Amino acid sequence: MKRFCDLADFSREEVVDLLQLAQRLVQHPEPQALAGKVLGLLFFNNSLRTLASMQAGMSKLGGSSFVITPGNGTYRMETRLGVAMDGDAAEHIREGLPVMSSFCDVMGIRAFADGRNLDADINETAFNAMAELVADKPLINLESAMSHPCQALADWKTMDDIGVPRTGRFVLSWVWHPRALPLAVPSTALHMAAQRGMDVVVLRPEGFALPAPLMDKARRAAAASGGRVSETSDRREALQGAQVIYAKEWGATAAYGDAQADAALRASLSHWCVRNDWFDHTDPACRLMHCLPVRRNTAIADEVLDGPRSVVLREAHNRLIVQMAVLHRMLKEAR
Amino acid sequence: MKRFCDLADFSREEVVDLLQLAQRLVQHPEPQALAGKVLGLLFFNNSLRTLASMQAGMSKLGGSSFVITPGNGTYRMETRLGVAMDGDAAEHIREGLPVMSSFCDVMGIRAFADGRNLDADINETAFNAMAELVADKPLINLESAMSHPCQALADWKTMDDIGVPRTGRFVLSWVWHPRALPLAVPSTALHMAAQRGMDVVVLRPEGFALPAPLMDKARRAAAASGGRVSETSDRREALQGAQVIYAKEWGATAAYGDAQADAALRASLSHWCVRNDWFDHTDPACRLMHCLPVRRNTAIADEVLDGPRSVVLREAHNRLIVQMAVLHRMLKEAR
Amino acid sequence: MKRFCDLADFSREEVVDLLQLAQRLVQHPEPQALAGKVLGLLFFNNSLRTLASMQAGMSKLGGSSFVITPGNGTYRMETRLGVAMDGDAAEHIREGLPVMSSFCDVMGIRAFADGRNLDADINETAFNAMAELVADKPLINLESAMSHPCQALADWKTMDDIGVPRTGRFVLSWVWHPRALPLAVPSTALHMAAQRGMDVVVLRPEGFALPAPLMDKARRAAAASGGRVSETSDRREALQGAQVIYAKEWGATAAYGDAQADAALRASLSHWCVRNDWFDHTDPACRLMHCLPVRRNTAIADEVLDGPRSVVLREAHNRLIVQMAVLHRMLKEAR
Repeated sequence: MKRFCDLADFSREEVVDLLQLAQRLVQHPEPQALAGKVLGLLFFNNSLRTLASMQAGMSKLGGSSFVITPGNGTYRMETRLGVAMDGDAAEHIREGLPVMSSFCDVMGIRAFADGRNLDADINETAFNAMAELVADKPLINLESAMSHPCQALADWKTMDDIGVPRTGRFVLSWVWHPRALPLAVPSTALHMAAQRGMDVVVLRPEGFALPAPLMDKARRAAAASGGRVSETSDRREALQGAQVIYAKEWGATAAYGDAQADAALRASLSHWCVRNDWFDHTDPACRLMHCLPVRRNTAIADEVLDGPRSVVLREAHNRLIVQMAVLHRMLKEAR
Repeated sequence: MKRFCDLADFSREEVVDLLQLAQRLVQHPEPQALAGKVLGLLFFNNSLRTLASMQAGMSKLGGSSFVITPGNGTYRMETRLGVAMDGDAAEHIREGLPVMSSFCDVMGIRAFADGRNLDADINETAFNAMAELVADKPLINLESAMSHPCQALADWKTMDDIGVPRTGRFVLSWVWHPRALPLAVPSTALHMAAQRGMDVVVLRPEGFALPAPLMDKARRAAAASGGRVSETSDRREALQGAQVIYAKEWGATAAYGDAQADAALRASLSHWCVRNDWFDHTDPACRLMHCLPVRRNTAIADEVLDGPRSVVLREAHNRLIVQMAVLHRMLKEAR
Repeated sequence: MKRFCDLADFSREEVVDLLQLAQRLVQHPEPQALAGKVLGLLFFNNSLRTLASMQAGMSKLGGSSFVITPGNGTYRMETRLGVAMDGDAAEHIREGLPVMSSFCDVMGIRAFADGRNLDADINETAFNAMAELVADKPLINLESAMSHPCQALADWKTMDDIGVPRTGRFVLSWVWHPRALPLAVPSTALHMAAQRGMDVVVLRPEGFALPAPLMDKARRAAAASGGRVSETSDRREALQGAQVIYAKEWGATAAYGDAQADAALRASLSHWCVRNDWFDHTDPACRLMHCLPVRRNTAIADEVLDGPRSVVLREAHNRLIVQMAVLHRMLKEAR
């Protein structure tokens, strides 16, 4: 495996196989599997889980890591092609990325959506340009404009762990946040659940529908796996019989890149905060998932996060476990 | 040992035992003792010694570390309970801390005093709330509102190393600083010296007395160990026969959390800078201790720091040595 | 080897010997050579290559690293002697550096030129003061006011790798940058090429001549190695038959430390950007070198950086390789 950039690049069987490797490494640790191997981590954006778990996972397999954060101890980086660099950025990704990759055995990159041009973001223009620059080394996407495959893999494992049926109802629900957040996690969770074969419902207010290309891609995955994908703004209808509420904040797609219009659209939506009564008509065993970080009492209420339905900490811990499988597959059991 | 949060939680004998382990690891290094173990470090505040020595110590025992600094590459964290998180903080410690602890084998947390409510700070309200969130993993306090046990343990070892008698006179002296600093180091040094059995004198100007609960706690430790605790604002009296001057800056306890009143109280105190003449009536062998960082020529003069009385570098180096013992005790010789 | 602070401190034979060790470690890796050894890295300035490659190199030899960045998670540091520290800096290098060095087995320091007093910078006043403070540990200069020996060693190796003749023409050319940059790389590249025995030409506009002491030092090295050193502002003359164009940005030495005068001097010089036509009269095999980071289309055009003449990525990768030799020589094959 040379690339782990989008869970959609893998078949259902390949995902299941990776999850089995993850489980095997839990039961039979391999503390020297990646001895001498170095992971180079490039973070253009904030991180807690990814930053910590990638380093911890590499350590637990015997390898090590270094971290580069442009603008914070390292030069700001230019990503546009052909520009005369007379501004703040002192280095271009065309040098910075190949240099980093030449120092390590595997690279991980976090680069959130630019958030101005929806088509460019859907096409992963920025991330793909970076990926081309590290063509000679394995690469892990640590969250790009539209993809967060490590999160999706951890979420899949979490549902397996807690016994959510393969065909269960998975409700991806928009929740409130003070400002527009990227589409990477919702689009990835949507596709992951479809790929798993679930009855996926996207619940979101008007103006926040996920872009058609993402919905279509998920529908194709569902068709292949025996799942379904639908969307609605009717919460009662969506949550009926749900086995998972996957809460996520995202920006208004009807006003992509327009902060003012986005703010206007979300102004009246602060009641989109998951509370215990959201579970009134779900399956009794329904669980609450979220990728974290989460803003308490704006996106999800304390009563839910601190209650028995929340599996957010399990999802986070699974990040470590599945990423170790990805690293192992890339560097040890090369396929 | 599951917690190393306050040296006062340990008996004199347990401290001596830890120091013996530290010495043993110097004489008989165990470079693989913690192979495969990961230390998660969470810094809400600046650090040099702690940041460097915790990582170096873990490495020298065969383990590894990762570092998280909220607000600097990682999301700002909310610590208050029950609030609606619509401000700067994107993550709550109720998620952030359990997640970090689930990635590592031992955690270290630095969280200085909030500095507004003296009672809350004395009761370690903030740190205790964090400690509860990592209940399943060993935890090291890297400086909280009122406690800096790694520093205290290094200081104790330093006095042993240089032959300061167990019952010697230990003068904890306030020294000048441009602004109010926290009480963690003075309160910890006070208690450590009392616990060691010393004749402890707190020397401080009016308005800077250490809070009564801290003085009382130290007096109880002194009673158990055969030591004494007193306080005065008379420098001559305090320093008479001293074997250690432990210099430290701290805020006006008479105006806790009031920066203006604090500034007024300290305005005329810039002569509280340790100079060679402070040693005129001490024991001839009297040494100067300080936890570092220290502002030269405001808190302590060059002539003292660069002279033979200063043992500040030895104290700092002992941080590495004693912390390796703490890590070893927690992860290898579990008791 | 206790110090790697200036390539000029080593004879041509010693440099060749280090490069042979570098090559040996590529062919016969020693992944446990530095097991248990810790590298302490102190960065007063931004870094990508150095920050990543020092950590990666240490890892690939079995050791580990920690990183301290004053003002960014660590206290700001005072470097001046004798001052009363009542400003922003909370720690003096007289404490901070010995403390760091007491935690590690080898130290690396990056401290760019202060850029105000040319004599002080040429004499490495600041770096030498720091080096004295870590007298007990091996020390690597990661770029000081006038020296960047790791870069020079990597550049030397790069020319060996690609077959640049020992006596070939090496043109160190000033190129445009929006503001004054330090002299460390140009002065080090100049001396390195002279030491290698090359026909060195410094090509720079009026006002940007390298300081006489640096030119003289390079001329002495050339005399010893059979090389030559000259300078000109005539590009055509300089590039005639060149085998290497080593592009570098630097500040106006005629107005050292005067940002306004520097800006005036460089205002009309934006055509000093390396383009393909710079190679019209060079040797056909002429290569483009640069230490990176480089501003595209202001210092060097895309057409050159993306063309076959550029060896900038090879130079960067050689940083890793030669630094591993330096670390190995210091800690394993102590000479």
